[in-house]
Amino acid sequence: MPSKVPTRDRMVVSAALLIRERGARATSIDDVLRHSHAPRGSVYHHFPGGRDQLLREATEYAGSYIAGRIEAGAEAGPLALFDALVDAYRQQLREGDYRAGCPVAAVAIEARADGDDTLQQAAADAFDRWLALLAAQLAGAGIERERAERLAALAVAGIEGGLILAQARRDLEPLDAATAEIRNLIEAALAEAA
Amino acid sequence: MPSKVPTRDRMVVSAALLIRERGARATSIDDVLRHSHAPRGSVYHHFPGGRDQLLREATEYAGSYIAGRIEAGAEAGPLALFDALVDAYRQQLREGDYRAGCPVAAVAIEARADGDDTLQQAAADAFDRWLALLAAQLAGAGIERERAERLAALAVAGIEGGLILAQARRDLEPLDAATAEIRNLIEAALAEAA
Repeated sequence: MPSKVPTRDRMVVSAALLIRERGARATSIDDVLRHSHAPRGSVYHHFPGGRDQLLREATEYAGSYIAGRIEAGAEAGPLALFDALVDAYRQQLREGDYRAGCPVAAVAIEARADGDDTLQQAAADAFDRWLALLAAQLAGAGIERERAERLAALAVAGIEGGLILAQARRDLEPLDAATAEIRNLIEAALAEAA
Repeated sequence: MPSKVPTRDRMVVSAALLIRERGARATSIDDVLRHSHAPRGSVYHHFPGGRDQLLREATEYAGSYIAGRIEAGAEAGPLALFDALVDAYRQQLREGDYRAGCPVAAVAIEARADGDDTLQQAAADAFDRWLALLAAQLAGAGIERERAERLAALAVAGIEGGLILAQARRDLEPLDAATAEIRNLIEAALAEAA
């Protein structure tokens, strides 16, 4: 990361990148300091709530990052947006040798098990935001509201599940197969609505 | 678990139950001994490979358990089978207050990050087996082979992703929404093939 990025932001991004590989539980303050090249003093200076705050903000950042991509893709239409999201994850999997999945999913699984309600809520908020944005775009393209919400849930669930299958197999095939079906379904729903 | 179940099997099942809540990384030998009420000596007696072997066998057990459900549901047809699988996960989420997801997914995420190739392969094998069994049933019902494979991938990815969304939100809604779309898609594909 360029050093012009403020230390606080670098730490949040580093935490998100580490979480998407190893999960929140295994992401220590030391790991984040090393990854972000931040001085030790920055932790409690920027994050008075310590590691909990940093992990929460990293989850929020990951949520906002994808939400931003969904919003930016609005103009191109829901189908092109879905393709772009899937392509970005395909690239991420390949470039990181299938180590990097979705940080929000990693947090969701761990936080529920650990009874960490704050972190779990951050993951739930991220998912809710993605679902709401996608559903709004699908509904905006003429798909009936309830159907749009179901398709949005399928798009996110299918990508999240497809990422896990692809990570296990170190192979894009199951992600490609699952998302090809979702793509066709969105295409048909859009054609029907037009 | 009834004490008639052999110690070795009790330990494997306990490990799988613990993994589906907290992941493999956070599942210790002590946790498994406590959960299975097994004497400490049983670890290296039954699992000369220690914790690694136990985690691998627990992942294999989880894979075989679901594979067995898929095989047992063959007679009822792919649609009833899909409904039964989803219902079982819905019940599991509710009964465990959304703590228990899929052990194989938890292993897949962690093993890739940890570079644990043996455990990752066990997760990949479990997914492969589910996909192959589901695809065979869909193809057996007349759906063209490639389509059957895509639908099988979508079914597993959609359930896995839906579980994660549901766990984050402590709410069945996203799982229900995603799987309702998959169900309709399978139903339409079966009607088309008939």
